[in-house]
Amino acid sequence: MTYQAPIREIMFNIEHLPPSPEAGAVGGGIELEDVGAALEALGRFCSDIVAPLSRVGDETGARFEGGETVLPEAYTQAYAQFAEMGWQSLPHPEEFGGMGLPRAAAAAATEILNASDLSFGLCPLLTDGAVEALLLTGSDAQKQTYLERMISGQWSGTMNLTEPQAGSDLGRVRCKAEPAADGTYAVSGTKIFITYGEHGLTENIIHLVLARTPSAPAGPKGLSLFIVPKFLVEEDGSLGRRNAVTCVSLEHKLGVRASPTAVLEYDGATGFLVGEENRGLENMFVMMRAARFAVGVQGVAVSERACQHALQYAQERVQSRPVDGSTKDAAPIIRHPDVQRMLLRMRALTEGGRALAIATAGWLDLAKQGDAEAEDMAEFLVPLVKAFCTERSLEVTSLGVQVHGGMGFIEETGVAQFYRDARILPIYEGTTAIQANDLLGRKVLRDGGATARRFAGMVQETEQALQGGNAQAQAVAKRLGETRQMFESSLKWLLNTAGKDLNAAFGGSVPFLMLTGNLAAAWQLGRSMLAASAKLEQGEDTGFMTRKIATAVFYAQHILVECGAENLRITEGSASLGDAALNL
Amino acid sequence: MTYQAPIREIMFNIEHLPPSPEAGAVGGGIELEDVGAALEALGRFCSDIVAPLSRVGDETGARFEGGETVLPEAYTQAYAQFAEMGWQSLPHPEEFGGMGLPRAAAAAATEILNASDLSFGLCPLLTDGAVEALLLTGSDAQKQTYLERMISGQWSGTMNLTEPQAGSDLGRVRCKAEPAADGTYAVSGTKIFITYGEHGLTENIIHLVLARTPSAPAGPKGLSLFIVPKFLVEEDGSLGRRNAVTCVSLEHKLGVRASPTAVLEYDGATGFLVGEENRGLENMFVMMRAARFAVGVQGVAVSERACQHALQYAQERVQSRPVDGSTKDAAPIIRHPDVQRMLLRMRALTEGGRALAIATAGWLDLAKQGDAEAEDMAEFLVPLVKAFCTERSLEVTSLGVQVHGGMGFIEETGVAQFYRDARILPIYEGTTAIQANDLLGRKVLRDGGATARRFAGMVQETEQALQGGNAQAQAVAKRLGETRQMFESSLKWLLNTAGKDLNAAFGGSVPFLMLTGNLAAAWQLGRSMLAASAKLEQGEDTGFMTRKIATAVFYAQHILVECGAENLRITEGSASLGDAALNL
Repeated sequence: MTYQAPIREIMFNIEHLPPSPEAGAVGGGIELEDVGAALEALGRFCSDIVAPLSRVGDETGARFEGGETVLPEAYTQAYAQFAEMGWQSLPHPEEFGGMGLPRAAAAAATEILNASDLSFGLCPLLTDGAVEALLLTGSDAQKQTYLERMISGQWSGTMNLTEPQAGSDLGRVRCKAEPAADGTYAVSGTKIFITYGEHGLTENIIHLVLARTPSAPAGPKGLSLFIVPKFLVEEDGSLGRRNAVTCVSLEHKLGVRASPTAVLEYDGATGFLVGEENRGLENMFVMMRAARFAVGVQGVAVSERACQHALQYAQERVQSRPVDGSTKDAAPIIRHPDVQRMLLRMRALTEGGRALAIATAGWLDLAKQGDAEAEDMAEFLVPLVKAFCTERSLEVTSLGVQVHGGMGFIEETGVAQFYRDARILPIYEGTTAIQANDLLGRKVLRDGGATARRFAGMVQETEQALQGGNAQAQAVAKRLGETRQMFESSLKWLLNTAGKDLNAAFGGSVPFLMLTGNLAAAWQLGRSMLAASAKLEQGEDTGFMTRKIATAVFYAQHILVECGAENLRITEGSASLGDAALNL
Repeated sequence: MTYQAPIREIMFNIEHLPPSPEAGAVGGGIELEDVGAALEALGRFCSDIVAPLSRVGDETGARFEGGETVLPEAYTQAYAQFAEMGWQSLPHPEEFGGMGLPRAAAAAATEILNASDLSFGLCPLLTDGAVEALLLTGSDAQKQTYLERMISGQWSGTMNLTEPQAGSDLGRVRCKAEPAADGTYAVSGTKIFITYGEHGLTENIIHLVLARTPSAPAGPKGLSLFIVPKFLVEEDGSLGRRNAVTCVSLEHKLGVRASPTAVLEYDGATGFLVGEENRGLENMFVMMRAARFAVGVQGVAVSERACQHALQYAQERVQSRPVDGSTKDAAPIIRHPDVQRMLLRMRALTEGGRALAIATAGWLDLAKQGDAEAEDMAEFLVPLVKAFCTERSLEVTSLGVQVHGGMGFIEETGVAQFYRDARILPIYEGTTAIQANDLLGRKVLRDGGATARRFAGMVQETEQALQGGNAQAQAVAKRLGETRQMFESSLKWLLNTAGKDLNAAFGGSVPFLMLTGNLAAAWQLGRSMLAASAKLEQGEDTGFMTRKIATAVFYAQHILVECGAENLRITEGSASLGDAALNL
């Protein structure tokens, strides 16, 4: 199963899609060339070492044997190399041994790693989230104890939120944390769906656990966040006794089968409070935002992988004469118009998602520097990256199967795995509905639509710039403008309706998220088109630039046009949804 | 894994969706009540015996051990009961032991059986197709030899088309048939992807094989159709020697894992020519039309199954407070607006597909009686049933996973299987692109759009009837009218463009099929709405009728609205597709 990291395409995005020219592609004295060199090296490692694991990982799966979690042998070796080469450290602060690269570069690295194998990529992804949470909410002592070895990849991290009765509804978490005399807590309870909750890839696993102290109020405001290491860490930094947290089983899953999804039993395990009591959910949200963004990037990653396989198969598989009669012989199927349509749809959705993700990374970096407007924009964009890119990955991986015809249904071909693997992406780290509620409730209604309108204003600026271009650019500007107006009309309807009928408003939340995500991706492709047109005028890399432009136009004419249906669902479909729901 | 056949809903469709009042719901002296009673009995058998097999069948799979094909033990018993109860005979002529029920009833039976287990349902489905082909193209002697025992379920049938180099492109078939002195043929070659190509459920397997005689011209017009029985049949009807056809392996598949997909090696196997030499493809098309229609019904079937599971889970799973604050406690997730939206979408797509399939069955019956216009309409509708219902089953089964959240990704929950099983439906018996080419090339361009315009005229009649109804009916009429006009505009564009640029026209073939399928389903739901409104006025079964109406309105406002994007893709997206294809 070959994979080539699309470095040229990724670097184009990093260079041209920062929030503004002033924000710059990369900051802190880092050169674009250095980012490119790092990603190329990662790309080689992933092509050579990680990508070949994905089939064997899927076939073998993570197994639970005699009480032990067993991963495919090749995973252990590959992970050791991954850590040794320092790839875990890429986005983290130099203070703790990180490379300190900007988030757009980190997003690209996440894409490359996950494209080569989603199951493998999940371990570093969760570690990144845990590092992020500790950086922002851990004490100095906690940072000293844990961060360096997590950033080096020596230790991994997990998120422990879900319990059997508490999935999307974290207020129902029952896991208990009893304070002990020494300032630690005894953590007890059952956590389920814990990604990489147990494994032997790293020396230690740092679990971040949501639990409830005895005096805590009921509901989500009574949750506290705890560090519960698999092995306790002695004062000198060496590993001490095994903590009272045990893996009792692994799930049998549709996809990402080599990633161990554990049921963890905490039985008075020693935990260390992170931040203040009862503010666990807030603190966990930090980790969740990083993880949600990264899961969105996983959607782009698996889409890219599916694209590469489909394109290769379409170039090689010979079947049927071209419909235009240009030859009497059967031709490679890439000559057939509907195969072209499928491949272009796959590519446009993938490039649109990538552009959205990398642009959002820029806003996240600006936000980190304390820019409040950037913080709002990042908060607005992250649920789009998470939900839009992952929902679209279902379509892209499905088309990837379809391009292969009957061969796509045969597991040995490998593309069915992408279809299975992708299916978790719109579910974990908050389902699409949870993202849509977050978008509508916290990011739109709460500020009366101010951020949403600012977003629309930025889209409009891109429209105006495109209107100054050639006929193709003007056509994209037209579609962007129509869709931006639909966005505004849906926004207005939602703001009006929410005050009167929350059920009606939230019945439109997912259509609104999909409309907004689609518009946001098209907007970034519009910006790509402007950048590519300028380069083309300079005669730079004409093949690549022509392709970027063609993809942006295709996106506007074939994918952005879906927003019309979303807008009608929101603004005219509410009564029929309510009536039909009464008859469910 | 429970399943309840939706008898009330199915019978409503059979009663109210025949092509015209004159055509009648059922013909040939058969009473509607008898059809209902037969389907209820089948429903009980499927709930009790077949549905519980689907999980075990998926887990065990069809295995190839020591040269033998081994199916799950429970399959053998269930199949024996299926045959003994006479279910295979339901749609076939009484002359050969069949029940002679109309095709709408047969479609309903296919749905019920396949909803309970797609893997199990495939064996009878292929037998039905083979029976159909022999009825229409076999000699009297062939009918006498094979039909009775195929219709009784004692013997099964297969379709042998595909070879490694010949999938969609049957002109590349290489399998050879050498004439022998006794009038038989020696058939040699390799066939792949043969569903139920080898198994022990039945005493004999009647393979229908496309092969090429020595004098045959190259390409699709040199194919002949042969009966190649697994065991040769003696003059007295007893089974003779084993024929030279061997299963050499089974595929490892994403889904329908208990259905054996065989590679068959023919090594001078004794074959009997069906119909004339070199007319095999025409003859096979008879079988393919039946099989394509049935595969479309499989799409409805797996959708219905997914709906039932999602609805049940949503009623039971308690998570989060309702957004409207109507209670402070966590509620069953069916109270959340987006879960309602997903469930309604699943239901509307399923009921729309079913209505389209059962209406099409009526046209097929009319066509069989020699009505040429009905034949054209049936030909127009079958690719819609095949492609639209199966493409939509991907969405419905995906939403079924999504409603279950993280539990949906766990194989033991069972709904991931529906997602995997469904994935073959838009591929086998002709991919969606093949259906779209068939629709556009043979059913639209060939008669200059005459049948398509007749179809639009019938939609318009339903619009007019709905305009005489209440506000809801008028709203559906409005959407139907808008969409019918889009259909007409796409049709006009395609007719104009095909003469100049076939690549451009066929680049719009799948969007055109999806637009037309969507409109056709909405049309049938519009007819359902008219029937349900009349019943409601009479006070009959008000709960059911209210629900039918609500579903039709929801469909028009949330699903039919997707046609706008398809229309834009066809009429305005062609240039961008062509440009981008140059840069693939």
